[in-house]
Amino acid sequence: MSAARVGIVGAGQLGRMMALAGYPLGIECRFVDREARSPGGQVAPLRAAPLDDRDALAALAREVDVLTFDIENVAVDALTELADIVPVYPPPRSVAIAQDRLAEKQLFQSLSIPTAPFVAIDGVADLARAGEELGWPVVLKARRLGYDGRGQRIARSRDALLAAWDDLGRVPAIAEGWVTFESELSLIAVRGAENAQVYYPLTENKHRDGILIESLAPHENPALQKSAARWLDRLMREFDYRGVLTVEFFLTQGGLVANEIAPRVHNSGHWTIEGAETSQFENHLRAILGWPLGETTSRGHAAMLNLLGALPAATQVLAIPGAHFHAYGKEPRPARKLGHCTLVDVRRDRLLTRLQALRSVVGRAD
Amino acid sequence: MSAARVGIVGAGQLGRMMALAGYPLGIECRFVDREARSPGGQVAPLRAAPLDDRDALAALAREVDVLTFDIENVAVDALTELADIVPVYPPPRSVAIAQDRLAEKQLFQSLSIPTAPFVAIDGVADLARAGEELGWPVVLKARRLGYDGRGQRIARSRDALLAAWDDLGRVPAIAEGWVTFESELSLIAVRGAENAQVYYPLTENKHRDGILIESLAPHENPALQKSAARWLDRLMREFDYRGVLTVEFFLTQGGLVANEIAPRVHNSGHWTIEGAETSQFENHLRAILGWPLGETTSRGHAAMLNLLGALPAATQVLAIPGAHFHAYGKEPRPARKLGHCTLVDVRRDRLLTRLQALRSVVGRAD
Repeated sequence: MSAARVGIVGAGQLGRMMALAGYPLGIECRFVDREARSPGGQVAPLRAAPLDDRDALAALAREVDVLTFDIENVAVDALTELADIVPVYPPPRSVAIAQDRLAEKQLFQSLSIPTAPFVAIDGVADLARAGEELGWPVVLKARRLGYDGRGQRIARSRDALLAAWDDLGRVPAIAEGWVTFESELSLIAVRGAENAQVYYPLTENKHRDGILIESLAPHENPALQKSAARWLDRLMREFDYRGVLTVEFFLTQGGLVANEIAPRVHNSGHWTIEGAETSQFENHLRAILGWPLGETTSRGHAAMLNLLGALPAATQVLAIPGAHFHAYGKEPRPARKLGHCTLVDVRRDRLLTRLQALRSVVGRAD
Repeated sequence: MSAARVGIVGAGQLGRMMALAGYPLGIECRFVDREARSPGGQVAPLRAAPLDDRDALAALAREVDVLTFDIENVAVDALTELADIVPVYPPPRSVAIAQDRLAEKQLFQSLSIPTAPFVAIDGVADLARAGEELGWPVVLKARRLGYDGRGQRIARSRDALLAAWDDLGRVPAIAEGWVTFESELSLIAVRGAENAQVYYPLTENKHRDGILIESLAPHENPALQKSAARWLDRLMREFDYRGVLTVEFFLTQGGLVANEIAPRVHNSGHWTIEGAETSQFENHLRAILGWPLGETTSRGHAAMLNLLGALPAATQVLAIPGAHFHAYGKEPRPARKLGHCTLVDVRRDRLLTRLQALRSVVGRAD
C-alpha cells in the first residue's frame, strides 16, 4: 500500500478538507491540534497537543513524508526546526511574512507588486506622520495576529488614530492609506516541484465585518488574471514556494492592489472542490509531495457561500438543485465558520438565481 | 452538530467511498467488517466482526439512523431482523433477489423486462431440457454467490453442460440462452423518499474475465435510456426501493436485455465522483436518509479505468492531464480491484486520447 503520509499542524476545516482530498490519492494525513474532536480529528488520526508543542510536532514530523499546516498563526520557529526532520511546505519564511503586515507590505514593494501606501507605527510620532503621508481616513492594523478583520480600526482624524492605537494596546502596527475599491478578488496559485505552476481563475469575494461570506468564480478578466499571476509567480519564486499560495487583492480603478497573502489553501478557493477540475486541497497535497499538479480549469461558474454562526439543515440546502453542502463538524458559535455551500452551473444566470434561493435558505438577506 | 449516522455492513471500497462522500454532508458512517484495516476501516470507525455476527450488527444498528451495506453477499436474514431496530435500505428483499439468479430472472419476466431465456437446473433432467429449449451454447450459472464472473461456465454440448454442472458441484443453477451482444451497458438509478427518482446516464462497460475493466459515460441514446429507466422504475416500485439500484444490460440488435441487478452503488458508477454533478455515493446516502436527491447530470464525457492486481504509481497516473486517481488502501493480489482512475472531458475525442495514455500507464494493451 505504501501510502504517502502528510502531517498537518492544525486540524480546522482546511485540514479536514485536505485529509478528505488525500484518501482517494492514497495519501494519509495526520494532525497535531489542541482539540481531539476538531474538524480534522473527526476524519483522520490526531495527536492532541498545543500547536507549539515541540515534542508533539517532532513526533508528527518523524511519522510523515512532508509537513504542512492549515493555519497561519503557527509558531514559525517550531516549523523551521522541524525542517531538519522532514520537508516543511509552504516554506516557514512565507508564514513569517504573512504573520507580519509590515514585512508583507515591504515584500510587495520590493517585488513591485502594487499595494496600498503605508506607514509603520511603532510610536506616537509615527501616527502624526501617517496622517500627513496617507491622508484620511487611514486603516490601522496590528502587525501581527490579524485575520478575519480582527485587529483593524478605521481612523478619520489624528485623535481617532491615537484612540485606535490605544484600543489595539499600542502594539506594533501599520497605518494604510484608504483604498477605494470596486470589489475584492483573490488569486490562488499552486507551485510544485521544479517550478511547476498552475493558477485558478480569479475569484470575487464578498466580506461582511471582515469575514468572507461569498465567493464567485471565475472573475473573467484576462488582463487582471495575467497581472495577478505574474505577481504570484514573483512571490513563489522569492519563497522557493511549494503548495497553494493565495493573494487577496482590491480591484480599484487603477487596477489590482495586493492586500495580503495567505500561504495555504484558502476559504475563497472552496468552490474548487466541485467547481474546478482539481480542488485546491488536492493540488496542495500534490504540490507539497512533489507530485504532478492537477488542472485548475473551472467547470462553469461557481458560487460559494459561507455558513456562519449556525448551520441550516442539510436537507434545506440540498433541496436547491445543484447545491453542495459542506459541514465542518464544529460547535455553533456566533460568526464562526461552520460550513459552506457551493453551486456550479455552466449558465451564470441560472447560477445567480439558485444563489438567491440559497441565500434565503441560509437567512442572508442580500 | 447532530450529524446523521449511517451504518454500513461491509467496509470495502464501496463503503469507503460512501464514508468519504458522507463527511462533507455531516453524515458519519461506521462499519461492521471482518477486517479492521479494510478500505472503509481506514477512513471511518469500524467494529471488527464477521458480516453475519448478529450481536455486532445489532450494536451497529442501535447507533445509527439508517443501515445499508456495501456488498451483495450479506446475510439477508440478519438484515431483515435488523429492520426491527432501524430502517435498512436498500430493502433486504432486493438483496435476496440479487443473490438468486433464478429469482432475479423470474422477477425480470414478471415485470416484462427483457432478459435472456433460461431454464432452472436442479437435476440432470433439466440439463437435457436446457439444451432443447435454449440451443447451444448455453451459459450455466450457479444460482447463488456468483459475482465478477465466478460460478459461470459456457457449454457447447449436452456432455459439456453435464461436465460444467459437475464442475460447479451440482449446485442449484440456471442455464441461460446465448445472447449475442454489441456491448454491455448499465443504468444506475436512485430512489429516495416519496418515490423521488433520479437516473444517471447509461454507461458502457468493458469486462475481461468477467471483471469490469473500463466504463465510458454517457452512452447517449435517448431511446435506450428511456426503456432502461422505465424498467428500473418498475423494479424500484416493486421493492419500494430506497438507495442506488444498478441494472446491467446487454445491448443486442433487438435492444437491451437485462442481465442482473445490483442493489447498491456500483463499480460502473465510479465515474460519477468527478463526472456527474452528484456522485452515486452521495446520492445513495441522501436517498437512504430520505434527503433530497442530487442532480445526476454528467459534466461532459467520463472514462473510468479499474486498477486490478497492482497499483501504478499515483505520480504516473496524475501526470496525465485531467486524470483522477483513487486508491482503496488494499493489499495487492492478482486481479483484485485496488483502485480506479477517472478522466472527464467536455470533448470526447480528447477524452479518448487521454484514455489511451492512461491505459498504457496502467499497462493495459488495448
